[in-house]
Amino acid sequence: MGGSEVVLLDFWPSMFGMRVRVALAEKGIEYEYKEENLPNKSSLLLEMNPINKKIPVLIHNGKPICESCIIVQYIDETWTDKSPLMPSDPYARAQARFWADYVDKKVYDASKKTMTLKGEEQENAKKEFIEILKVLEGQIGDKPYFIGESFGYADIALVTFYCWFYTFETLGNYSIEKECPKLVAWAKRCMQRESVSKTLPDPKKIYDFFLEMRSKLGL
Amino acid sequence: MGGSEVVLLDFWPSMFGMRVRVALAEKGIEYEYKEENLPNKSSLLLEMNPINKKIPVLIHNGKPICESCIIVQYIDETWTDKSPLMPSDPYARAQARFWADYVDKKVYDASKKTMTLKGEEQENAKKEFIEILKVLEGQIGDKPYFIGESFGYADIALVTFYCWFYTFETLGNYSIEKECPKLVAWAKRCMQRESVSKTLPDPKKIYDFFLEMRSKLGL
Repeated sequence: MGGSEVVLLDFWPSMFGMRVRVALAEKGIEYEYKEENLPNKSSLLLEMNPINKKIPVLIHNGKPICESCIIVQYIDETWTDKSPLMPSDPYARAQARFWADYVDKKVYDASKKTMTLKGEEQENAKKEFIEILKVLEGQIGDKPYFIGESFGYADIALVTFYCWFYTFETLGNYSIEKECPKLVAWAKRCMQRESVSKTLPDPKKIYDFFLEMRSKLGL
Repeated sequence: MGGSEVVLLDFWPSMFGMRVRVALAEKGIEYEYKEENLPNKSSLLLEMNPINKKIPVLIHNGKPICESCIIVQYIDETWTDKSPLMPSDPYARAQARFWADYVDKKVYDASKKTMTLKGEEQENAKKEFIEILKVLEGQIGDKPYFIGESFGYADIALVTFYCWFYTFETLGNYSIEKECPKLVAWAKRCMQRESVSKTLPDPKKIYDFFLEMRSKLGL
């Protein structure tokens, strides 16, 4: 069991922060949510994550845990009484870690390029992004979730990008559902879970946030 | 227990491959070592790691596990009878994962730059690399190992770079021991373990390999 005091330093549109929120919701853990202002990070954030200075940070009984995928594993290993997020079989666990790692290494950077590049460069970025999504779709296939029958770690790693799809599609003028119907069907299946649907913000709110940030940064 | 047939696809100077070899040695697992010729990858490698097409790949009873840190965790979770590589406490485990992840994200790329850039760019790369090593040294401090008293996952993630230090130092004309004495003391402590000393190749052999590769690639 995990003890009592849980604080999350986070930023609402962050896919990485949302991973932690989904995991906490799956486990039914109450926590204090502290929104960070990223251009002006709190002294608490800098003290709790002096190495990377990034959200999300989970503070459990005063001790910080950093990096979203590591936090999700920590939550799973600390609150073991319900909703296991990792498969029990070591091989299935290695598979879950492999796909979460693939998402971490590929999806964010590729999606960012589709939003910030222009013209032919943007078209190439879209192609690259779709290829990555198709690899992920190939892994999910017709299974309910990433690693078979249970929602878990690899699903959490990817599903938080889903609320950004509307922004990617609107800025890039394409349909992810048309390219990757099984991936979107999987995302909709995940959205039937309260832990996901209550955590992921409204896609239009994300889009408005992105436009505002872009105009502030003069991009 | 892990069953019987273990095959490792690897390339001898790879710090990533060495991580797996150290973990297998810690657990006393017998395995078949298959050297890959990276400019001409085997069909077995391409079949076993179609996504990343990289070594190391561990094949256990016909099933592949990819990505060195994931393989080390798999080994630890499969052969549980001796030499635990992960701490038992979830918080210490999160710490071990954080530092292995830091090594993965920072050390290889920074070290590569010190070997391939020239002039002022090389000097800047050296400074950046030393700063990263100092962060790692700060974490180890005066403890025997990364996460306290036991050799484990985070140690394995970093120590395989130690046999490359001679190459970094000779090409960059500096002393890592002078900059980071506690880090080098830690590496020497790790080298007292047979799993490490028997796995890590002779640093001069690594240096000769690097010079040969550089001249082949015309750098």
